[in-house]
Amino acid sequence: MEINKIHDRIKGDLEKVNLLIKESLASDVELLNTINKYLFDLKGKQIRPMLSLISAKACGEPNDLTTACAAVAEMIHTATLLHDDVADNSAQRRGAPTVQNLYNPASSVLTGDYWLAKALSLIVKQNNPAVMGYFTKAVEELSEGELFQIQKASRMDTTEEDYYYIISRKTSSLFVASVASAVYSSGASEKQISDLSRYAYHLGIAFQIRDDVFDYMPDLDTGKMAGTDIKEKKITLPLICALKNCNTKEREEMLRFIKETDGDSNSLVFKTMEFVKRYSGIECAQDALGQHSRKAIEALESIKESEFRRELEALAMYVGNRLV
Amino acid sequence: MEINKIHDRIKGDLEKVNLLIKESLASDVELLNTINKYLFDLKGKQIRPMLSLISAKACGEPNDLTTACAAVAEMIHTATLLHDDVADNSAQRRGAPTVQNLYNPASSVLTGDYWLAKALSLIVKQNNPAVMGYFTKAVEELSEGELFQIQKASRMDTTEEDYYYIISRKTSSLFVASVASAVYSSGASEKQISDLSRYAYHLGIAFQIRDDVFDYMPDLDTGKMAGTDIKEKKITLPLICALKNCNTKEREEMLRFIKETDGDSNSLVFKTMEFVKRYSGIECAQDALGQHSRKAIEALESIKESEFRRELEALAMYVGNRLV
Repeated sequence: MEINKIHDRIKGDLEKVNLLIKESLASDVELLNTINKYLFDLKGKQIRPMLSLISAKACGEPNDLTTACAAVAEMIHTATLLHDDVADNSAQRRGAPTVQNLYNPASSVLTGDYWLAKALSLIVKQNNPAVMGYFTKAVEELSEGELFQIQKASRMDTTEEDYYYIISRKTSSLFVASVASAVYSSGASEKQISDLSRYAYHLGIAFQIRDDVFDYMPDLDTGKMAGTDIKEKKITLPLICALKNCNTKEREEMLRFIKETDGDSNSLVFKTMEFVKRYSGIECAQDALGQHSRKAIEALESIKESEFRRELEALAMYVGNRLV
Repeated sequence: MEINKIHDRIKGDLEKVNLLIKESLASDVELLNTINKYLFDLKGKQIRPMLSLISAKACGEPNDLTTACAAVAEMIHTATLLHDDVADNSAQRRGAPTVQNLYNPASSVLTGDYWLAKALSLIVKQNNPAVMGYFTKAVEELSEGELFQIQKASRMDTTEEDYYYIISRKTSSLFVASVASAVYSSGASEKQISDLSRYAYHLGIAFQIRDDVFDYMPDLDTGKMAGTDIKEKKITLPLICALKNCNTKEREEMLRFIKETDGDSNSLVFKTMEFVKRYSGIECAQDALGQHSRKAIEALESIKESEFRRELEALAMYVGNRLV
């Protein structure tokens, strides 16, 4: 089952979600509406609201609260992209200029704040403490994860444990909130919420590893530039793996080289990619990716058999697929 | 009555607020704790939580919910400063380097997100829809006001009406939320909430005009650089006044000069300040400031006489005082 097919099958539900997002964001500030239209036109696969909707269908009956959860998930995600692009000074996303590049960093930061505020207003309107709890926790963890990554990048001492701490916060936390809130809204049992949260956690980890592997694959057309993590001295799983596979002397030399080389230098990206390739960093990261994809599927075991459960499995397999 | 004396009189209550802020922000990410400590050490006059506390005392009995409202007000304010400093690329605030300058823009954006998320978590914990409503509305309006200001700056067509639209959103909205939520928490009547909201609205307007006047007074030691608004082509009240007081030809020439001159050029700041001085822009803005300060005091008329009401009046007089 392809991701596009799954996407098509819940098109109607996703349209309701996107309508709610548009209605929630309407403003009388023209600049904001212009930027919002740009963001709608460039929207990605919308994996978070897809997960909200399919998970809710796998456990119960989606309703207006489910639609709101799915909308909030996508709105928070978009807010973090607008902020991350300023934080990372990114020029491109999804094959098009970022808002901070096309307009200016100020507009990107403030539009992100607006999306975040509107997302939280939309949750508040639902008047449901459990749903609020899921999402506020996710927003806290998102920024904590990003800041821990910056701290680690400045010291060049990211361990494998640190890496999982970072990605569980910066990626899995919103996956979990998207799924747990939606499943809860559909009237699922505690056990179902817990199982699907575990599914979302592992899927988020796999998703982020996949993204980090992409950064070491310059020949792939992902809509983003390869090599950006290493330019920002962010040490992700492929490099952590390679640093484990080489000897102590090579490890120290490589870390010193990354530390002392300017982020804009071509040789930094070239040499690091070459090092990761030599010490099988991508294969090793892909093994981890496969493990988390399998754990996500295992977490679904107690969920009753249905086309929706099969779609959740297919999404985990899609994310877990080897890229090379 | 001086502002410092008022501050001293509610020191104990403010300490409780600051303790709650610190507890709410505690993290296991070292970088975040380091930046937070820096922000605590440099905290300003904390006018928003002061207003929350004194307003609540003027109408009823402050309680734990009041402390939370005051903490949330200060946390949201700090989050917006962290974001504004990135948006405006500001080097200094309160006489010290900004976080985006001392660390990097990424840390400033993400720490702002963290403060915002923790503020909203703290509101959610109170489980009070009215209080949530006040603050989520404020956060939406803050970013809308800032974005409208950017839109207007890019087109150089800010009218007096636009100016009040901008500052009512970017400044008054959080003043109103700080006061209305706290007064509500103390068990005040609808009428008291409405009167004190009007007080906070006009005080916010006066406060922002004062700040915008400061930007045209290079000899004042405000902890910020004068002339930053005009460098960013933000047209504020002193300039709007001066443009009204000159003839059409001078107006067109001045607008063309600002539009065509590089933001980093010294002559931009020098010539604009000279123009504002020549056409009494500061005096005119100060008249408006005085009017809003008086309207704030008038809004207190139905509030029963007490030392707290006098403090609120004194704060409005302090903000409304002529600077030259």
